[in-house]
Amino acid sequence: MPAPKQSKRVFLSERPKGHISDKTFKSETAALPTPNADQVVVRVDYVSLDPAMRGWLNDTRSYVPPVQIGETMRAGAIGTVVQGNNLLKEGDIVQGTLGWAEYVVVPAKDLRKLSPPEGSTAVDYLGPLGMTGMTGLLDVGKVKAGDTLVVSGAAGATGSLVCQIGKLKGAKVIALASASKCDYLVNELGVDAALDYKSPTFAKDFRETVGYLDVFFDNVGGEILDLALTRLKKNARIVLCGAISAYNSAGQPEGIKNYLTLISQRAKIEGFIVFDYKDRYAEGEAEMAKWIKEGKLKRRYQIEQGLEQCPQHLGLLFSGGNTGKLLVKISKDAAKY
Amino acid sequence: MPAPKQSKRVFLSERPKGHISDKTFKSETAALPTPNADQVVVRVDYVSLDPAMRGWLNDTRSYVPPVQIGETMRAGAIGTVVQGNNLLKEGDIVQGTLGWAEYVVVPAKDLRKLSPPEGSTAVDYLGPLGMTGMTGLLDVGKVKAGDTLVVSGAAGATGSLVCQIGKLKGAKVIALASASKCDYLVNELGVDAALDYKSPTFAKDFRETVGYLDVFFDNVGGEILDLALTRLKKNARIVLCGAISAYNSAGQPEGIKNYLTLISQRAKIEGFIVFDYKDRYAEGEAEMAKWIKEGKLKRRYQIEQGLEQCPQHLGLLFSGGNTGKLLVKISKDAAKY
Repeated sequence: MPAPKQSKRVFLSERPKGHISDKTFKSETAALPTPNADQVVVRVDYVSLDPAMRGWLNDTRSYVPPVQIGETMRAGAIGTVVQGNNLLKEGDIVQGTLGWAEYVVVPAKDLRKLSPPEGSTAVDYLGPLGMTGMTGLLDVGKVKAGDTLVVSGAAGATGSLVCQIGKLKGAKVIALASASKCDYLVNELGVDAALDYKSPTFAKDFRETVGYLDVFFDNVGGEILDLALTRLKKNARIVLCGAISAYNSAGQPEGIKNYLTLISQRAKIEGFIVFDYKDRYAEGEAEMAKWIKEGKLKRRYQIEQGLEQCPQHLGLLFSGGNTGKLLVKISKDAAKY
Repeated sequence: MPAPKQSKRVFLSERPKGHISDKTFKSETAALPTPNADQVVVRVDYVSLDPAMRGWLNDTRSYVPPVQIGETMRAGAIGTVVQGNNLLKEGDIVQGTLGWAEYVVVPAKDLRKLSPPEGSTAVDYLGPLGMTGMTGLLDVGKVKAGDTLVVSGAAGATGSLVCQIGKLKGAKVIALASASKCDYLVNELGVDAALDYKSPTFAKDFRETVGYLDVFFDNVGGEILDLALTRLKKNARIVLCGAISAYNSAGQPEGIKNYLTLISQRAKIEGFIVFDYKDRYAEGEAEMAKWIKEGKLKRRYQIEQGLEQCPQHLGLLFSGGNTGKLLVKISKDAAKY
């Protein structure tokens, strides 16, 4: 695996207003810099596509700096070292923020060398063993046995794990997703019920099936959040993991109106960012690895192809076009999973 | 003080849609029931008017049952026992949920006999020594020295106490109120700044004066809450004590749109109901009484007159017509405060 002289990359060309367009990203092939002693050259094998990436394109105050115009699009990824140093050797499988590129030159200290435990593979570090798996359900949502847990975006990467963790912890789990994914949620992931959020009778179905809820794990925001606010039990917790319905709105998203129930039910809405739990990644990862080994946690990956198609693949997250964790295979030489 | 044979009362006649109207309440004079051995007859001296009372008129699921049609309007009050029993004697000053009436017959066990500590008076039990004073600022808002605390409805009964407790705890306090109340807040209560929320430059003033906030103690909801959401520091806490802007809306209140900052700033909105802190009333009351005795806590009462005018006086809370705690003196024989 010799290090190449040049590499293709996809970079931010223009900040989108609303949805990503053809003009948002551009690609180019450029010379790869020569690594210094602290750096290694990594071939990017798989990149993770996450709803949060849409937020990184906005020039606003947030939990990470926005991606700059001209900068290679930031993305979590796994790759293979093709030119090592004293810390990493050629052939090591690593995880890091590699970005949308064929090859990258990065400090070895920013990479983690992977040795997947029994039952797991390297891509699981982009799924349950990585940030996707550190859902905040237990720390923020404080889900316990007997709770009624409602999960929106339930068939997505994080949602599908939240549903399973909820069941493993003894909660009654009601999953919200589009109609085509409800079977998967009930029959493969074992949730108690799955509701089609696009159904004309959704609000009624929600009231009848859920009754009142203890925890709402929300990936969607907007109207679904507003409906959930009307069905809170006393001391209910809403974990705001994402608000995918709002990420692409050119103006302001639809407002939530039913927040007065937060007072009458002494309830809360709490946002969380996985980075705040860095100290506990190892603990979360160990628990997930154990569940995987025991066959208690199912993973599903939707693996798309092609570096230059990354922008279009990212759009799948906002059109309901993915089930499970969405990845893009970048290198044709990457191991199959 | 002989117990009268009859008493006037004001009762709910029709549930209001939106603002209270002339048809919402009616009054009548009716025979007073004969007390049994567990009951006493109490002359109502002062009733407390609180924004939450508007919510009690709606037939919706909430933290207390709605007031029923025909029922005497529920209200916290202080009064004087005019016919005692083995627990309370004639002349005792008591606090309880007496309602909008001249006289009431109530179980003695539902009343608290008052013995105000040095520096305090009986009406302070409708103010800082009562539920109004148990603001949730410390338990829910977790205000600490150096925090930037923003208070809406700052000149109201709860707001004016929150401002002072914030200062006593070492926070920088920015008060939001109508223009005529800003002087009182700065010069008498000692807040660091007071902003007129009706000013055309309010949003700009807010951004410049507040910068970013640690705690927002909100009595108002609506647009002000939405603005505050754009100015959260990391791990900010929004204490939703009330949403006075929304209580009278006939349909749904204006939605809040900027809730995505809850995620990026890992912040929360938490509602609270003072009843949940019953176990700690004594602790809160003792701290407030100590501050009053030391001259560190100012109280301001706006005392209106007349049982039958209670509905109109209640409207003052929603039109910005009160500064400090709003009471109505019911009995002409009540002690002056």
